[in-house]
Amino acid sequence: MPVIAVNTPTANYNVVIGRGLLPTLSRRIAKLTGSPSTRLFVVTTPEIWKLWQRKFLASFPKDAKPVVLLHPSGESHKRFAAVESLLEHLAENKADRDSVLIALGGGVIGDITGFLAAIYMRGIRFIQVPTTLLAQVDSSVGGKTGVNLRAGKNLVGSFHQPLGVFIDIDILKTLPPAELRAGLQESVKAGVIRMPRLFRYMESESKAILKGDPKALEKVVTASVKMKAEVVGIDERENGLRMILNFGHTLGHAIEAATKYKQLLHGQAIAWGMIAATLISVERGILPEADAIRIVNTVLAYGPIPKFRAPVQQIVDLTGSDKKNRSGQRRFILPVSVGKVEIVTDVTEAEMLHATEQTLKLMQERGA
Amino acid sequence: MPVIAVNTPTANYNVVIGRGLLPTLSRRIAKLTGSPSTRLFVVTTPEIWKLWQRKFLASFPKDAKPVVLLHPSGESHKRFAAVESLLEHLAENKADRDSVLIALGGGVIGDITGFLAAIYMRGIRFIQVPTTLLAQVDSSVGGKTGVNLRAGKNLVGSFHQPLGVFIDIDILKTLPPAELRAGLQESVKAGVIRMPRLFRYMESESKAILKGDPKALEKVVTASVKMKAEVVGIDERENGLRMILNFGHTLGHAIEAATKYKQLLHGQAIAWGMIAATLISVERGILPEADAIRIVNTVLAYGPIPKFRAPVQQIVDLTGSDKKNRSGQRRFILPVSVGKVEIVTDVTEAEMLHATEQTLKLMQERGA
Ligand SMILES: NC(=O)c1ccc[n+]([C@@H]2O[C@H](COP(=O)([O-])OP(=O)(O)OC[C@H]3O[C@@H](n4cnc5c(N)ncnc54)[C@H](O)[C@@H]3O)[C@@H](O)[C@H]2O)c1
Ligand SMILES: NC(=O)c1ccc[n+]([C@@H]2O[C@H](COP(=O)([O-])OP(=O)(O)OC[C@H]3O[C@@H](n4cnc5c(N)ncnc54)[C@H](O)[C@@H]3O)[C@@H](O)[C@H]2O)c1
Ligand SMILES: [Zn+2]
Ligand SMILES: [Zn+2]
Repeated sequence: MPVIAVNTPTANYNVVIGRGLLPTLSRRIAKLTGSPSTRLFVVTTPEIWKLWQRKFLASFPKDAKPVVLLHPSGESHKRFAAVESLLEHLAENKADRDSVLIALGGGVIGDITGFLAAIYMRGIRFIQVPTTLLAQVDSSVGGKTGVNLRAGKNLVGSFHQPLGVFIDIDILKTLPPAELRAGLQESVKAGVIRMPRLFRYMESESKAILKGDPKALEKVVTASVKMKAEVVGIDERENGLRMILNFGHTLGHAIEAATKYKQLLHGQAIAWGMIAATLISVERGILPEADAIRIVNTVLAYGPIPKFRAPVQQIVDLTGSDKKNRSGQRRFILPVSVGKVEIVTDVTEAEMLHATEQTLKLMQERGA
Repeated sequence: MPVIAVNTPTANYNVVIGRGLLPTLSRRIAKLTGSPSTRLFVVTTPEIWKLWQRKFLASFPKDAKPVVLLHPSGESHKRFAAVESLLEHLAENKADRDSVLIALGGGVIGDITGFLAAIYMRGIRFIQVPTTLLAQVDSSVGGKTGVNLRAGKNLVGSFHQPLGVFIDIDILKTLPPAELRAGLQESVKAGVIRMPRLFRYMESESKAILKGDPKALEKVVTASVKMKAEVVGIDERENGLRMILNFGHTLGHAIEAATKYKQLLHGQAIAWGMIAATLISVERGILPEADAIRIVNTVLAYGPIPKFRAPVQQIVDLTGSDKKNRSGQRRFILPVSVGKVEIVTDVTEAEMLHATEQTLKLMQERGA
């Protein structure tokens, strides 16, 4: 089973990837916590719990089942206020400094649970068991945790690394196909920014991957996690290199905001954002056209990506409030080849408007 | 002006102590932030703002006044839910990653503001300008931040060190005398646990100190901060030495809880707690009786400490939920001489009951 080490200045942990991991969790977790008597609390959604509780609980002895905290699913519940009741539940259930939280869910549950662990009693340990492809290839690794404010997404949070990450490929079986495809866009991203081999694999094997072939998915997940582990190992706090993970996200986040986070999944918005950033590179003459075509086609291969309606100017304006941009500068990650990007802060409004317009045109032809 | 350096694994900063500091803040802060254009946000209470806004704002240029966020005063507003509206206000006012928060207030404002800074955009910088004696000698230094849950005090928070601490002794002029005296108990604590010189000074100079003589207060504050800086420099995360700061707090917290946080100020409850811990030491034969008498008399000299009513058994039971105690063990800090303590986990329920009883008897004679 692939095991990928994450080593940052604040933590060292492993990401274990495999099939049939879920029914073996108990002893793996006991090894990590160092004690079979550690109190465990699993945070999940009612839907995921219904689907997976039997397998999840299988390995735990009767008298040492984790306490279950259910949280409603959906981005709209990834809110600061919603965290309070989870905290109160932890306290009522006498969670202490040695207790360990387990996030069983997608990125929403992972981000909330990580934040809970970061602030409960000034920090307790937690474990990620990601159940969406996006969470497996991206959000469960790297220690970014957080919740949304009315004023914006992920405006509140902490850096808090997990004690371990257990990725069971089998758990993707029940994931809706659109969620799988949206998540795969983050793997396309991983390929474009730093993993040409992964990109080529995704380019040529899209059929097997999209069918949900477990071996193919395991390959994609493993390569994506390797890339992310490397990057956060070098730059945990996003002062430099880690910014490349935001390829496609400057305009992607603006598209999400312009469509009120309702019409597109995150990965779908990022797909359009990656295309737009690629077009900026082409216009600048820093990316060979042949590479641009490969990137655009591979992004679209993991569609269909839904069309949306939003004024070009509004999308561009919305990039201004992206918290990734210090002191008002808009930061872009621009591909210079398949597998290599540059971080720039000098993209003009005209360039953005042009690339967004072209992207919307392409969308009319090739969006769903 | 005394300047005390705090050096922990995560931060290095100075605590500046003096008179007339408030009207000089602007350039001191600009030096720390590295830029006069950093956006500043001051968090304070309406009462403190009314008393001190003129002096606070004096040094800031007209076009660079900090944005003011008012928060109602009182422990009952140090709540997780209350933090959300402050966070939304920060976002509405476009606070960014480079913005700096300033806590102008007592321990409640300091703890809330530090927590805000810890989690807004996954961590921004903040500065402490403590306005109560307790905040000056204790809570503003060391990076513990946090808020309360329904289920208990300080159950949520972060370790997040400030960028700097500015202690203006003059600001204590408007502090109610009972608050001054309660805060001084934390300095008595500092003396007992690690600063025999400070203890002797407080023992012999209680008149000048209690009168609010600025020179005397400056001495007490400086020595207390020195002690705390040393301890958190050695053990930032309270894995060992830092626990000694909890002298008087095991039974003190239980007394606060038993009286529903309404009858006693924190320092007053801790005063009874220090007496009780001292009595445990005497019973154990680990503290010379002469030292015990000096400790008890000095604690009482900084009274009057109000009487309260609560069943002895209830107080002892309430020590069980103290989050300082890992895995159910009750931890006590017991003096072995003036200036030296031991950390123990083997105090029996019988010892606690006996010491609490004796303390309540003493209270009947010498409490207010
Ligand atoms: N922390 C990070 O570094 C990071 C990185 C990227 C994204 N994120 C965050 O991740 C979130 C998005 O995560 P997501 O895409 O996983 O969304 P999600 O967590 O909302 O999950 C999507 C949907 O799939 C359902 N689901 C999850 N697993 C399932 C399974 N195995 N079978 C059936 N249904 C299942 C969920 O109930 C939900 O309805 C966003 O909030 C984003 O901000 C965080
Ligand atoms: N973070 C830490 O390490 C740490 C350590 C000890 C205590 N604490 C926390 O500190 C809090 C208690 O702090 P506190 O005793 O400063 O209480 P506080 O902040 O509530 O202040 C006490 C009262 O004095 C008023 N006040 C403050 N400064 C004033 C001034 N200069 N003039 C007139 N009035 C003034 C306040 O408005 C308030 O009503 C508790 O919540 C406790 O948990 C934290
Ligand atoms: Zn993303
Ligand atoms: Zn205290």
